[in-house]
Amino acid sequence: MDFASIANSFVQHYYTTFDGGLTARQSLAALYRPESMLTWEGAQVQGQSNVIAALTKPELATVKHRVNTNDAQPAPGGGVLVAVTGSLAVDNAFDKPLPFAETFTLQPIPGQPGGFFIHNQVFRLIFAA
Amino acid sequence: MDFASIANSFVQHYYTTFDGGLTARQSLAALYRPESMLTWEGAQVQGQSNVIAALTKPELATVKHRVNTNDAQPAPGGGVLVAVTGSLAVDNAFDKPLPFAETFTLQPIPGQPGGFFIHNQVFRLIFAA
Repeated sequence: MDFASIANSFVQHYYTTFDGGLTARQSLAALYRPESMLTWEGAQVQGQSNVIAALTKPELATVKHRVNTNDAQPAPGGGVLVAVTGSLAVDNAFDKPLPFAETFTLQPIPGQPGGFFIHNQVFRLIFAA
Repeated sequence: MDFASIANSFVQHYYTTFDGGLTARQSLAALYRPESMLTWEGAQVQGQSNVIAALTKPELATVKHRVNTNDAQPAPGGGVLVAVTGSLAVDNAFDKPLPFAETFTLQPIPGQPGGFFIHNQVFRLIFAA
């Protein structure tokens, strides 16, 4: 398994789609299943519809991410751990980028060879120490 | 499985031991196995001895961590995903804390019920955007 390529393709697809706005972002639903978990700034939800609801809140409408680092490792169960750091701008405030860290575990989709879904996802803004 | 308690105990143990200095830090070896992976600032190593060598480099001798957030989720294979953010001081430069993000996946130790080892670990310093 070329976990680095999987991670790179995933990261590019995820953030490009996310940053395309609320309508485009709905299509990220294809990456989630009932067992998918998201912890966003400490708030935990589970399942495709709950995750998409959390990711499409109005206050996140115009988020733009810049990925600085993308580290990947093979994970248990044939999965891939993807750990991203970067910065994001909200409401086009590109002069006030907010550092963030986001972690994903991708798992193989049962019955769909080569396909992966997001099993775990944790997002945190990083505040100055 | 009380994944949040496991994560909290792990995080407290890991950083307290790490910050105890190079000799104390050697005892973290008990948390790693041959399949354990560490990516530290983009450099990947695998296996207990390689991981401990990376964590006990002279330049890391006096690191002190402060954990700000600790998010846990159940992970595939009976594991726990632990995503930490915080800051650290090197060489007692507490006036210049460096933000960091660190992700772990813990997996059950075969044949040792209730025991976990570190399967995946990714560390990154976070630089101002």
